[in-house]
Amino acid sequence: MKKRVVLAFGGNALQKNGEVSAEAQKKIANEVGEAIYELSSKYEIVIAHGNGPQVGNILIHEEVGDSEKAPAMPLETAVAMSQGQIGYWLTQAINNAFIKNGKQAKVATVVSQVVVSKSDPAFKNPTKPIGQFYSEKEAKELAREKGWVVKEDAGRGWRRVVASPRPIDIVEKKTIIELIEDGVIVIAAGGGGIPVYRTKVLRRIKGVDAVIDKDFAGEKLAELVKADIFVSVTAVPNACVNFGTPEEEKLGEISVSEISKYLPEFKAGSMLPKVQAAMAFASKNKTGIITDIEHLKEALSGKAGTIIRR
Amino acid sequence: MKKRVVLAFGGNALQKNGEVSAEAQKKIANEVGEAIYELSSKYEIVIAHGNGPQVGNILIHEEVGDSEKAPAMPLETAVAMSQGQIGYWLTQAINNAFIKNGKQAKVATVVSQVVVSKSDPAFKNPTKPIGQFYSEKEAKELAREKGWVVKEDAGRGWRRVVASPRPIDIVEKKTIIELIEDGVIVIAAGGGGIPVYRTKVLRRIKGVDAVIDKDFAGEKLAELVKADIFVSVTAVPNACVNFGTPEEEKLGEISVSEISKYLPEFKAGSMLPKVQAAMAFASKNKTGIITDIEHLKEALSGKAGTIIRR
Repeated sequence: MKKRVVLAFGGNALQKNGEVSAEAQKKIANEVGEAIYELSSKYEIVIAHGNGPQVGNILIHEEVGDSEKAPAMPLETAVAMSQGQIGYWLTQAINNAFIKNGKQAKVATVVSQVVVSKSDPAFKNPTKPIGQFYSEKEAKELAREKGWVVKEDAGRGWRRVVASPRPIDIVEKKTIIELIEDGVIVIAAGGGGIPVYRTKVLRRIKGVDAVIDKDFAGEKLAELVKADIFVSVTAVPNACVNFGTPEEEKLGEISVSEISKYLPEFKAGSMLPKVQAAMAFASKNKTGIITDIEHLKEALSGKAGTIIRR
Repeated sequence: MKKRVVLAFGGNALQKNGEVSAEAQKKIANEVGEAIYELSSKYEIVIAHGNGPQVGNILIHEEVGDSEKAPAMPLETAVAMSQGQIGYWLTQAINNAFIKNGKQAKVATVVSQVVVSKSDPAFKNPTKPIGQFYSEKEAKELAREKGWVVKEDAGRGWRRVVASPRPIDIVEKKTIIELIEDGVIVIAAGGGGIPVYRTKVLRRIKGVDAVIDKDFAGEKLAELVKADIFVSVTAVPNACVNFGTPEEEKLGEISVSEISKYLPEFKAGSMLPKVQAAMAFASKNKTGIITDIEHLKEALSGKAGTIIRR
């Protein structure tokens, strides 16, 4: 039986050397497609991905082009748009990697709503900057007009900030599981998922302007689809201690309790959520991996990457 | 056994009274959700939808906000974005209609690539205006710079025009069928589908800037999933002859050969493709229906709408 693997790719993994055009991003998606093809004979594959730079691009266009006749869409809808966009690129790349090898892919992108809690403390303290930069005056006007929270961003100007709550469920989980069991490579929870919450009384689902970390969403997806392995696919082959210093040391196979000692080593918003997500998955008696796409195959066979086990 | 029905909704069905905000469109999506819930006990439902005004909105934002750092996405990618957007709204609306009735929906939006032929005559004569209006000078500059075809649009300014080729296949058809057979309400081929073609030698799939008519794409979807009934859901309860005149007559149950006599009656780009799509489906010994959402349930039981049979 094939092992079931959830791969969480960064949205910036599609943008190398600062090339941000659709053409450039599709080219890198093709490399991802080749890697997925190679793995697909041995593993059931589910792909989660980030959307940082892509939804950033969408939001800038939405904000710059906002008008009465063509109003800007809210952030939650922009996340849905980025799922269509990136899901399309990855689906097509995987299709073509199979065609190149004389085969036909079964691959589908499922638009995914990820449930968060309205009482998540993140909503009390929004920290994630999104969209374009504004002057202080513009920013404060937008805050009044649209109910945004705005903050000064590291001397570069003012930006909207939103909450980054923890994922607690995926609305489409049953469909995703059925697809996996039908032998389909599934792309889901893109951009961390479209953030939704359940209303208190009627329990309806409703979108909320927030962004969910793609590693936490990928880990939740791995848990819900009962994956064997969760991989945070990033720009480096291993998580490191003393990263970027002469004392840098790569972490290889490591236990949850051992890597937990190094948590203060990892950068918030960068390596930290990857380690936290991989640790959380490993704690469930599974395997959590951090590696780059070049070492993915080896890491899955236990020969490369940072491999966390309970 | 439940009958299998493909419903093709217009993208402008989500915009009533010129209300174009996300909130207003979601409200109408909720009405669609209620209708789908009602039908779901009797029918297997697949939803195709248009994206005219929504992708128009995206393209305007992409064009106005285009910059080196945040480049505009190509049209094919904008269609993918609109699939995420509208698919999300419909999925959530259907989820909530089920929740309201104490049930749990199985519903999923599948990002869909629709295959067209590069030798489709439409590519020789692009006619479909998209995106914002430009001055003649700007339009001709953009034509040079981006390879666009631009045309003067009814005295209102210059716009980009693209081809509207016929759909010949849907890349995700097998996955869509598996989902239907798993009891999932599927939203697919949104906006007529992301237009792709197969390259001549290597047979890879590649996106192409075009727009596919949502009724033709919906009919193709109905054919591929072996639906029993195809419905073009529009703003009027019936196709009519002498539409808008004192001699207006509603068409009810009608044969393919009979309605074919009235083809010159129907407006190109409006009622004509709906009638053509429903006729094409009826010719395959199935049922093709044209009606509005209010008469959908009755029309499916043969009691309302324009019902075309061979």
